[in-house]
Amino acid sequence: MRLTRRYRFAAAHRLHTPQLSDEQNRELYGKCNNPFGHGHDYVMDVTVRGQVNEETGLMLNLPDLDELVDAQVLRFFHHRNMNTDVPAFSETVPTTENVAVEIRDRLARHWGQAFPARSPQLEKIRLYETRKNIIELSGDGQ
Amino acid sequence: MRLTRRYRFAAAHRLHTPQLSDEQNRELYGKCNNPFGHGHDYVMDVTVRGQVNEETGLMLNLPDLDELVDAQVLRFFHHRNMNTDVPAFSETVPTTENVAVEIRDRLARHWGQAFPARSPQLEKIRLYETRKNIIELSGDGQ
Amino acid sequence: MRLTRRYRFAAAHRLHTPQLSDEQNRELYGKCNNPFGHGHDYVMDVTVRGQVNEETGLMLNLPDLDELVDAQVLRFFHHRNMNTDVPAFSETVPTTENVAVEIRDRLARHWGQAFPARSPQLEKIRLYETRKNIIELSGDGQ
Amino acid sequence: MRLTRRYRFAAAHRLHTPQLSDEQNRELYGKCNNPFGHGHDYVMDVTVRGQVNEETGLMLNLPDLDELVDAQVLRFFHHRNMNTDVPAFSETVPTTENVAVEIRDRLARHWGQAFPARSPQLEKIRLYETRKNIIELSGDGQ
Amino acid sequence: MRLTRRYRFAAAHRLHTPQLSDEQNRELYGKCNNPFGHGHDYVMDVTVRGQVNEETGLMLNLPDLDELVDAQVLRFFHHRNMNTDVPAFSETVPTTENVAVEIRDRLARHWGQAFPARSPQLEKIRLYETRKNIIELSGDGQ
Amino acid sequence: MRLTRRYRFAAAHRLHTPQLSDEQNRELYGKCNNPFGHGHDYVMDVTVRGQVNEETGLMLNLPDLDELVDAQVLRFFHHRNMNTDVPAFSETVPTTENVAVEIRDRLARHWGQAFPARSPQLEKIRLYETRKNIIELSGDGQ
Repeated sequence: MRLTRRYRFAAAHRLHTPQLSDEQNRELYGKCNNPFGHGHDYVMDVTVRGQVNEETGLMLNLPDLDELVDAQVLRFFHHRNMNTDVPAFSETVPTTENVAVEIRDRLARHWGQAFPARSPQLEKIRLYETRKNIIELSGDGQ
Repeated sequence: MRLTRRYRFAAAHRLHTPQLSDEQNRELYGKCNNPFGHGHDYVMDVTVRGQVNEETGLMLNLPDLDELVDAQVLRFFHHRNMNTDVPAFSETVPTTENVAVEIRDRLARHWGQAFPARSPQLEKIRLYETRKNIIELSGDGQ
Repeated sequence: MRLTRRYRFAAAHRLHTPQLSDEQNRELYGKCNNPFGHGHDYVMDVTVRGQVNEETGLMLNLPDLDELVDAQVLRFFHHRNMNTDVPAFSETVPTTENVAVEIRDRLARHWGQAFPARSPQLEKIRLYETRKNIIELSGDGQ
Repeated sequence: MRLTRRYRFAAAHRLHTPQLSDEQNRELYGKCNNPFGHGHDYVMDVTVRGQVNEETGLMLNLPDLDELVDAQVLRFFHHRNMNTDVPAFSETVPTTENVAVEIRDRLARHWGQAFPARSPQLEKIRLYETRKNIIELSGDGQ
Repeated sequence: MRLTRRYRFAAAHRLHTPQLSDEQNRELYGKCNNPFGHGHDYVMDVTVRGQVNEETGLMLNLPDLDELVDAQVLRFFHHRNMNTDVPAFSETVPTTENVAVEIRDRLARHWGQAFPARSPQLEKIRLYETRKNIIELSGDGQ
Repeated sequence: MRLTRRYRFAAAHRLHTPQLSDEQNRELYGKCNNPFGHGHDYVMDVTVRGQVNEETGLMLNLPDLDELVDAQVLRFFHHRNMNTDVPAFSETVPTTENVAVEIRDRLARHWGQAFPARSPQLEKIRLYETRKNIIELSGDGQ
């Protein structure tokens, strides 16, 4: 059984890599390379896999998941500029691909502490930059 | 090939288990434990797997699926109070997890009668309690 | 200028009026008359009219509106059964029409205390029972 | 008759007014005051009022409206940081209220050139910062 | 008080007027002039204005409205080609503007028979060709 | 890692197979058999699977995918009548099932030319005829 919970965050970013020239950056990232950045309302679906507790009828205690996502992701990303406010993006470019990897890594790193039992496990992350661009990533890094 | 068809039903429920004290119920289920219940507009995606009939270009006759879902699920759940109107929930708690299991079991139990051929098969059920809480369950009980 | 803010609440209700016989109730309200109730995820748009404060660029302080809506509406309606948990519906039927009137009256009654200045004023309430049924009501009772 | 056409733009902004102290800014704008900004996917509905041309069955030539909105709004706002890339916001704060006023003014200023006949007229602007916060403004400045 | 009810219909159309040459048609209507037509899933909001019946808590009996809309609109438009299946469009072009006028006229013509009392009255029609193109028309022809 | 990009097209179609009699066609396809066709706003999700380029942070260059989808699918389907404008449907019926197969085949046939490296690969196609009917098909023909 899989449970998916949806979160949202509003963040700014700019796509620019120091490994390329300014002109190459403009050509590669187009309008996303604009110097002062722009922003999106990201939608993030966190999917977990596990078993239902027979007594409570619940797979997990949702406030536990909310707390983990808030502590490790939302408070760093929501109403923030990812280039300047998330350390990982001082070195990599905050494309949707890299943002999804960073979010998955943040959750995976603290998962065992939040959910010490074998159930639930982190199944996948789905990140919608807009309604047209979506990245999906399995929970174990594949 | 997979075909998904979306259904909706409006239902009331209350989360409360007799195996816990009133105070434990309040702590566990929060506002969902309010004595007189509350309600949701559930969205249910039924996904089937099968092959296309070469002559008709269809995987299945949709009215057959609609009839099965209506006869086994919607007429018991739509505009109903699940705690009182669905027998299974006199014993288990109508959490989204348990509601999804009950719906899957109801469809699986009558599937062979509605679709006697090998195609289509019941692939999975996806139940949205709200846009933020989604349970997905494979058709064969995993 | 008008500002609209969207709120949501999940509630149960049953449509039944003591002024009609059981059979007349069944005929009038159809499935909405089912004895144990059913529920919806209501969407409520509160629209206010006013002027922008030149210094702050804001028409109103949104937390003030949120606090008023929460104190007068959401805590009584969200995760509740309106027939039993909202006093007004011991006498009138919680149809979308009457629910909208009750919400408008609750906000209008406490508006002057929350917003003592001439701006913002309560312009209208829009209540979506489902995406197909919407009631709109002006803030001054028309 | 009214025709509404929907546009979208992704932009970053920061809410901060030099007329208040840093602490007052933080208190007033909350997370929207974060130093490096954040962003949204804005939705903008432009509503025009006019008469249908009997020959063509059209109220206006949509590419004309698209061209005006693109030339005066989207190319300055889409994939931009409003604080730095839109001159008006060097002096006022890019709240949804002020952004809506700026967009309405930009369209109204060039309306007569794009649509010299009496029909269509600019009826109103509706700006969704998120799905929960919406500003509506009539076309003639009220 | 206003009540809005949403309906949907899937229809094909082609934009072409005999009053212009083939080349002018192509230039004016662009891809919408393709010879064999194309289609949309139209959304139609019907808004009525009236008073709540104190006994029932309802402004109108929704099945009465559904029946009128079905008999006068949906059965002629849903799963149809408007150019060939709706007589009005043998003479005018089925632009969203003209389709909205035709639907409003069909409802207005039979309104008094369906709702002989002063309440409810037909307030307006809102027709979404797509999510980006919307026509709104008052019920009395303005 | 999977990337999904959403496209839309408006198209007309009629469900009718020469292998059945007129009466059988009417019974099988119901309103979808109406002689002059009807239409939908199709939504198409193209999902690709691949690895992120470490330098750019991108899995693929989105304009490359857009160009492929436009050249092989959208220009043949958008604002078109599939029965008459897409050669494949002179022989098969443009049911959602067959439309999805045709789209997958068109993309698969030209995939290697557009993306000669091993990454990204075409993972699946998801085609929404309406919000209620969805077909999903893997990229390699299963």
